[in-house]
Amino acid sequence: MRLPQLPNLDPSRKSYFQAHLDDLTKPQGSLGRLESLGLQLAWIAGTARPADPEAFILTFGGDHGIARHGVSAFPPEVTPQMVGNMAAGGAAICALCRANRITHRVIDVGVATPCRFPGVSQRNVVRGTADPLAGPAMTRAQAEASVQAGIDEVAELPSASFALLGLGEMGIANSAVAALLVCALGGLTPEEAVGPGTGVHGDALKHKVEVVKAVLAKHQPDAADPLGVLATVGGAEFGAMAGAMLAGAARGWAILVDGYIAGAAALVAIALDPKVKNFLVWSHRSAEPGARRLLEKLAIEPVLDLNLRLGEGSGAALAVPILRSACAVMREMATFSGAGVSTAEQL
Amino acid sequence: MRLPQLPNLDPSRKSYFQAHLDDLTKPQGSLGRLESLGLQLAWIAGTARPADPEAFILTFGGDHGIARHGVSAFPPEVTPQMVGNMAAGGAAICALCRANRITHRVIDVGVATPCRFPGVSQRNVVRGTADPLAGPAMTRAQAEASVQAGIDEVAELPSASFALLGLGEMGIANSAVAALLVCALGGLTPEEAVGPGTGVHGDALKHKVEVVKAVLAKHQPDAADPLGVLATVGGAEFGAMAGAMLAGAARGWAILVDGYIAGAAALVAIALDPKVKNFLVWSHRSAEPGARRLLEKLAIEPVLDLNLRLGEGSGAALAVPILRSACAVMREMATFSGAGVSTAEQL
Repeated sequence: MRLPQLPNLDPSRKSYFQAHLDDLTKPQGSLGRLESLGLQLAWIAGTARPADPEAFILTFGGDHGIARHGVSAFPPEVTPQMVGNMAAGGAAICALCRANRITHRVIDVGVATPCRFPGVSQRNVVRGTADPLAGPAMTRAQAEASVQAGIDEVAELPSASFALLGLGEMGIANSAVAALLVCALGGLTPEEAVGPGTGVHGDALKHKVEVVKAVLAKHQPDAADPLGVLATVGGAEFGAMAGAMLAGAARGWAILVDGYIAGAAALVAIALDPKVKNFLVWSHRSAEPGARRLLEKLAIEPVLDLNLRLGEGSGAALAVPILRSACAVMREMATFSGAGVSTAEQL
Repeated sequence: MRLPQLPNLDPSRKSYFQAHLDDLTKPQGSLGRLESLGLQLAWIAGTARPADPEAFILTFGGDHGIARHGVSAFPPEVTPQMVGNMAAGGAAICALCRANRITHRVIDVGVATPCRFPGVSQRNVVRGTADPLAGPAMTRAQAEASVQAGIDEVAELPSASFALLGLGEMGIANSAVAALLVCALGGLTPEEAVGPGTGVHGDALKHKVEVVKAVLAKHQPDAADPLGVLATVGGAEFGAMAGAMLAGAARGWAILVDGYIAGAAALVAIALDPKVKNFLVWSHRSAEPGARRLLEKLAIEPVLDLNLRLGEGSGAALAVPILRSACAVMREMATFSGAGVSTAEQL
């Protein structure tokens, strides 16, 4: 597998974009987070006045061997049912993409049962991962193939010199897999990383922590080998999201990280190529406790804080209009000099 | 002046809309704040599946006699300059409205110098308010006329059975007036209510607190007489926003409160008719300290937290796509029964 080649963004150009921001007709800094977003998007787009970006969200589906250990509130057959629901346009992410002018694609990269629904992209690399308490969740070849599936999916998106690419997922039990990856690559403890997911509480939550601990104890994953980590703890949709992040960044696009699951995939992408960090926008602070702790550890302030815990790419979709708004401010606002407006300094 | 008659929303209908939310194909509550917004918007619209709402933002301009006491970082001539910038489409709110499919109108309700720019709605009721340290900022008749100006402006908006109406403002020194209203009607102390506005710090900020204290000491505003409070401390754009909020709610629309200034206007509207509360959506937590404290006091969780402190309606504009998304979720998502998706209870 050849990973996409990411551009090196020049940090010195940021001061040029900041100067443009500070000449816009508003008190400096008064648009808060929208200004830092505008700065980052201008930096990625390579222009102080970024065009109105097209937006894409890819939702990757996968199943997980770890589900047999009772770590989810929903049964595994929900994964293909929800992939079908997405194909039919009835899932939350479908409504959110329609409402926000976003092209949505659904990809089977690791669902246990075939998802032959019209419109679902067929890139299955594993029919559900194996039980990580019995052996590795995937072979190394499967892990590589999952990353390649994400790269290939992005290659089929329309050409655009600048765009927004959001990554989401659907996979019963994948918050347990996210916790495994966040422990292995993000330095959180199982107690910090494991949370209720779609609704695991009390004794079931304690059990989920124990399962995660047991998998980590069995495999002792090595953070220096991200593909090895991905193979041993799983799963396919994490590899695909990581591959898509790298491929999108290689095209010069801004990458929208959704919630906890996509955040864990971002750790895989960063481990594969740290240059991807410049392109990442963390769209929201998920209600999942591990997601909040991961953002804290990475010192990242996300765009939204809406207490979401659905996944699918829903938080990324909701952040799209905010990012487009940041581009519009950079692109369309008048400057103090051009508009004949007095500045604070002229008082 | 006859105030608009607001509908009494029936609280018992909320359980019906909640049942619809809980049948949508997602774990219950997993869309967090988007679900509570969807519930409120359905309640206002009177249907579990609200239509995609049209959105309007009105930006009211006004000047303030209190500005002569050095409570702002910008000179008063910026008010008409920025109204002109808005008329020309170069202000932040213009870019944000274009980016988010929002109809924007700019209204001179109290600017000191005539704003005869094309497209600016001419509803001036006072050519800048008077110095509230010398006497009342407005006469009672002017205060009433400012509320009426907001009502009249809403009457000219296109008919729509359900829509989003955001209120914003432009007025040098109006964060000092907002602090006065928030002290008089919201129960905050001057130290809690006064903040940097567009950029007042250090000794100038202490001076701003003293000016606010002196105005309150002089007039002893009576919260039981909101029009009296509005007249004595000002200003025209606050009255107009309050009137527009009442008129929008009377049409059955959801009302988007922008930041600190609009929040102070919302206190006037609530004092005039508490039924308006059901229709208010507080769009964001402004960086202005008094705004944060007011939200805390009212126990309100706003939609966004982007550290904005610009005004103009900018935060309301950014919340519009989130509210439209909440409507889309209510309107377009499949139900568990309809989509054949297993629920957690079937595990």
